[in-house]
Amino acid sequence: MAKVTACAHTIQGLLKYHGLKNKKLRLPFHDSISVCAKELTTTATVDFDHQHNEDVVEINGSVAKGIEAERVMNVIDALRKLAKSKDRVKIASKNNLANAKGVGFSASAFASIALAANTALNLKMDLSRLSEIARLGAGSASRSLVGGFAIWYANKNGRSFARQLDDGTRVKLAMGIVPMASPVKTDMAHEESVSSPFFTARVKEVKAALPKMIRAIKKGDLSDVCRLAEADSLSLHSVTMTGKRGLVLVAPETINVIRRVRAMREDQGIPVWFSLDTGPSVFLNTQPEYLQKVCQDIETNVHVPVIKSEVGGSARTLDQHLF
Amino acid sequence: MAKVTACAHTIQGLLKYHGLKNKKLRLPFHDSISVCAKELTTTATVDFDHQHNEDVVEINGSVAKGIEAERVMNVIDALRKLAKSKDRVKIASKNNLANAKGVGFSASAFASIALAANTALNLKMDLSRLSEIARLGAGSASRSLVGGFAIWYANKNGRSFARQLDDGTRVKLAMGIVPMASPVKTDMAHEESVSSPFFTARVKEVKAALPKMIRAIKKGDLSDVCRLAEADSLSLHSVTMTGKRGLVLVAPETINVIRRVRAMREDQGIPVWFSLDTGPSVFLNTQPEYLQKVCQDIETNVHVPVIKSEVGGSARTLDQHLF
Repeated sequence: MAKVTACAHTIQGLLKYHGLKNKKLRLPFHDSISVCAKELTTTATVDFDHQHNEDVVEINGSVAKGIEAERVMNVIDALRKLAKSKDRVKIASKNNLANAKGVGFSASAFASIALAANTALNLKMDLSRLSEIARLGAGSASRSLVGGFAIWYANKNGRSFARQLDDGTRVKLAMGIVPMASPVKTDMAHEESVSSPFFTARVKEVKAALPKMIRAIKKGDLSDVCRLAEADSLSLHSVTMTGKRGLVLVAPETINVIRRVRAMREDQGIPVWFSLDTGPSVFLNTQPEYLQKVCQDIETNVHVPVIKSEVGGSARTLDQHLF
Repeated sequence: MAKVTACAHTIQGLLKYHGLKNKKLRLPFHDSISVCAKELTTTATVDFDHQHNEDVVEINGSVAKGIEAERVMNVIDALRKLAKSKDRVKIASKNNLANAKGVGFSASAFASIALAANTALNLKMDLSRLSEIARLGAGSASRSLVGGFAIWYANKNGRSFARQLDDGTRVKLAMGIVPMASPVKTDMAHEESVSSPFFTARVKEVKAALPKMIRAIKKGDLSDVCRLAEADSLSLHSVTMTGKRGLVLVAPETINVIRRVRAMREDQGIPVWFSLDTGPSVFLNTQPEYLQKVCQDIETNVHVPVIKSEVGGSARTLDQHLF
């Protein structure tokens, strides 16, 4: 019997991955970079016990079924195999915010589950090694696990894992998060993107942007990091918009936020950039001293709540359990 | 002395042209197809007189300057040269709707000016031949001039002109037009699009869609025409979004209209599709028997006015002058 709880931060995609080269192993077409948001977390408790009759997964209060449960069990089964354990598991995971699409909660969910299971099964893998397995649930979980500014390698010497590039010491990033709901699942968007006539060109563009983003992070060049992330957001949405289903993932409020961000930057000289992941939610990227002003502008002019956040660290275990 | 007034309909781009291979001659990268909207027109009066001291162009009540005046004079100078005339000209043009971006008014403006000047200078060119010269003001003016569903050839045996494909007899299209304002000029978007990493792929896609659209028009297959136009709209906006300036041309209301159109189509089985040109304005494409219902849905749910229109014909002269 081993009950362990862990907590991980959601991720904001900076150079976003899109489309899977290998769906089963969740291997992407190219490396990707993200940053963790301290304010948004998923907490997961796992309990391995030979007395459990079956594996049960509860996500945000509902029993997971179908593809959702399957994705969790991909991670659990891989870890159980390594631990040579046959114990059934009970899992509960909970986000600290409900109903937001495109703020990286699938990443934090699988990162927290992977870390809790790793500890419960006494596997003692380091986070980078564990990220290869968290990846089987959601690709971005690899980056959520290692925390800070992180890169997920598509293929580095035959392995696909994440590594932290900066913990927020060099890049002094403050974020506003504008969460919005959407009925579109990220997995559907991943499938769609590959059908876009622009997909090949996007992969080439991301590959060209990666060394620039890494250099900007190493140099602590906030404006370059944010500028590259803003451009990448529009590229990602272009690819989902031109896939077979023509997915328009933005909300009316997304457009209003984008307009305000650009007005602040171009008319008022405020260093602020937007970033979108696979959904309508918006990240506002700025310097810590401008965060209050930026968030207030959006709340006042777009009438949407904004969550303020610093850069979040890596996943960690907690003493308090969910059940 | 010769004063003539002409009127032309705006165009809705179906397979839209974007980017110019030759800016001076306004030669595009590929053929394009549009349809005229009967309800929206530009009326232009031209008055050639050897007693005028200078050329004067007035657009919607303001004297045109800089690049705008230059574009008009490109058309006028070409026609004057053909007519061997040295008379100065006074021109006034007026749209029947103010402040809408992406509903094709630059097309109808140059089409009406070209036809009025052609008649005033007694050149007697047919509309297809005249479309080569109207093109020097705005590429889409070539299609506005010939009216109905029209194709503008990028290069057909060394010439770039428009030809009508159908006058609305075969394709029974009814349109709702949702006009919206925007500060972005189409010419800027044309320049931007070429800088997108997706531009080459877009040109290839449009070239592949052209024979499909022509076949659909010839067969009177309304749903195929509208489906191709909807997909092309998202492709066009993807290209402007990923150009150097990252132009986001849609408005919040654009997204709301798109959502309603898809809800009507997918949940209520109504044959309705959206189309966007280079701006936030939206065309609602449907069958005549659904037009009332579609426009009412948008007015009620998105709180924006919608103009109902049939397919418009070619440019024509009028008896009443603007001055």
